[in-house]
Amino acid sequence: MLTDFGSKDHYAGSMKGVVYGINPGAVIADITHDVPRHDVRRAAFMIKSFYKFFPPGTVHVAVIDPGVGSGRLPVAVSADERYFVGPDNGVFSLIYENTHNLKVVRIENTACIRDEVSDTFHGRDIFAPAAAHLSLGTNIEDLGPPVSSPVRLSLPAPVFTNKDVSGEIIYTDSFGNMVTNIPGKSVPSNSRVQVGGRRINGISGSYSEAPGGRLIALTGSTGLIEIAVSEGSAYELLGKSASGVKVIFD
Amino acid sequence: MLTDFGSKDHYAGSMKGVVYGINPGAVIADITHDVPRHDVRRAAFMIKSFYKFFPPGTVHVAVIDPGVGSGRLPVAVSADERYFVGPDNGVFSLIYENTHNLKVVRIENTACIRDEVSDTFHGRDIFAPAAAHLSLGTNIEDLGPPVSSPVRLSLPAPVFTNKDVSGEIIYTDSFGNMVTNIPGKSVPSNSRVQVGGRRINGISGSYSEAPGGRLIALTGSTGLIEIAVSEGSAYELLGKSASGVKVIFD
Amino acid sequence: MLTDFGSKDHYAGSMKGVVYGINPGAVIADITHDVPRHDVRRAAFMIKSFYKFFPPGTVHVAVIDPGVGSGRLPVAVSADERYFVGPDNGVFSLIYENTHNLKVVRIENTACIRDEVSDTFHGRDIFAPAAAHLSLGTNIEDLGPPVSSPVRLSLPAPVFTNKDVSGEIIYTDSFGNMVTNIPGKSVPSNSRVQVGGRRINGISGSYSEAPGGRLIALTGSTGLIEIAVSEGSAYELLGKSASGVKVIFD
Repeated sequence: MLTDFGSKDHYAGSMKGVVYGINPGAVIADITHDVPRHDVRRAAFMIKSFYKFFPPGTVHVAVIDPGVGSGRLPVAVSADERYFVGPDNGVFSLIYENTHNLKVVRIENTACIRDEVSDTFHGRDIFAPAAAHLSLGTNIEDLGPPVSSPVRLSLPAPVFTNKDVSGEIIYTDSFGNMVTNIPGKSVPSNSRVQVGGRRINGISGSYSEAPGGRLIALTGSTGLIEIAVSEGSAYELLGKSASGVKVIFD
Repeated sequence: MLTDFGSKDHYAGSMKGVVYGINPGAVIADITHDVPRHDVRRAAFMIKSFYKFFPPGTVHVAVIDPGVGSGRLPVAVSADERYFVGPDNGVFSLIYENTHNLKVVRIENTACIRDEVSDTFHGRDIFAPAAAHLSLGTNIEDLGPPVSSPVRLSLPAPVFTNKDVSGEIIYTDSFGNMVTNIPGKSVPSNSRVQVGGRRINGISGSYSEAPGGRLIALTGSTGLIEIAVSEGSAYELLGKSASGVKVIFD
Repeated sequence: MLTDFGSKDHYAGSMKGVVYGINPGAVIADITHDVPRHDVRRAAFMIKSFYKFFPPGTVHVAVIDPGVGSGRLPVAVSADERYFVGPDNGVFSLIYENTHNLKVVRIENTACIRDEVSDTFHGRDIFAPAAAHLSLGTNIEDLGPPVSSPVRLSLPAPVFTNKDVSGEIIYTDSFGNMVTNIPGKSVPSNSRVQVGGRRINGISGSYSEAPGGRLIALTGSTGLIEIAVSEGSAYELLGKSASGVKVIFD
């Protein structure tokens, strides 16, 4: 379960109740309820980063849903042996690429949603019950008809030349580590990195390799080049304006 | 589990451990541990809002307990096919009305609480073990004798005339949506709303219906009229002083 | 599960996914993910405070790991009928004392960790899978060879005389209660307490015993003397500089 509801209200709790009401044997894992409000792109990157660590059959529910009550579709997705349930606003779309057997359906089977559907809380009234039914073995096709053109987001792609690669910061975590869109595997360890008017010589192996306070680049846990400060915050050092990153091969 | 312990310490974790120690098959759902400290009224409204989404038989534990160690009673409640365990300070009392078969007992059976009961942490020493025993099938009557006059809180009631209804803000969520005590069903959609010196024409259907930044009124997920700002915060716009709300029927 | 990952990213969620992938029947309890970053001592005190409330056989995973990717060992610990999995930086060491049958092993069995181990996220790649295997019944000896001298932290010990005891603040919780290293059992209830240039007469029984705003001393839920303010924060009143505490027996 991933939402932007914050962790101070009862909204995520209501969704959990609905799930247990339909499937008392469900196992619910909170990812976070503190996605910045309405930040669909950030949530999409997070889902792409963590979903595959859960076992096949897992139902991922994401409610980052600025368009609730508007015309946006409620969807269930089958991709890469997992299920995904939430709004059709692109939040799942980073996993659509390179997946086998992608299915996206519009949730409209009234047997799988709450009797009363509000226009303000589809998480509770549509997504939680649909997810619970999928977890019980309901076929995704039984939730509703296929969606032919689901909304797709795309991450910016890094631009390679013979000598370098230019990319962007696409995610800053709560440690202040700034994750780029540049795959670590594409970058030799003796490369130089330019970011926010600064230069970094070489790709480090871990956060603790450099002395405290040093700006470093390394391959982070998602396999992408990250800009970090050992025992500190790259985001605090470089600020919001540091969005472009260039890695120069030596 | 609902507490005001915050999410940075190990207190809620200790309670979970006690529950699993008694009922290893228990399923524990966190609602939030970030109820504002000692805000019994807010917790009472939250419980009333979410409890019914959990299935019959659920044991709801709430530890918002400014009076721990004083004379206030530890109670277990049976109401509306669910159980509730916590301090007798009114935190469960909004569900006492309109319920069948209300039972409130004082928890004093030493077989169902920890051997050593501190005066500072009844959540761990009394409420968690009593809840775990209820989840295993212990009869509520076996926890202790009936409480004849449990503490009751009441929400302010809206005041209706032929032309309008006057109510109050009773809950502001972390989005800044301000929930009133006025049932949405009692208000025609072409009503005018007065709040914090401002006027709102008509009741919206959803948060996303109005353009960003617009102050709106709508029926929220709890069935009550909410004051909201599309893509923004009504609380930030109107401030704390906006407590009274009048809805004028057209 | 106890980490310093914060509650806004997907890191703890990735660990949960890895656990469920290996043991679909696992029950995961979040303690908190908001340990102050890299504060191994604080985490060590927390673990000592809550671990024993969980039933024998529980696997406690703690990832407060400033040295990830450096030479520090990944370890699994068997102590006091529970398991502990995390970095060998002392985070578990406060339970090493007074325990029977302490075993500490270096995790290196590649069958019990992920195929690809990053240098940045051992929580996901080593600790979560090793914990999942322990929860399935794998013998701790099968994870790797014994560690003869695991890293040990120690809490400062209180110093007793006939007339008084001198101690220190070792933990401040999010209510601002300041926990000392002085056992409540060693202190008569009519003692006087000196802390931060202030005097407190007598040991209170509970937070609510004194009128609001009053600085008090009491035996907290961990059995240690705490400095607190009734309906307030001792930390706000006394500040960071109040580290030494003296209790004078009367």
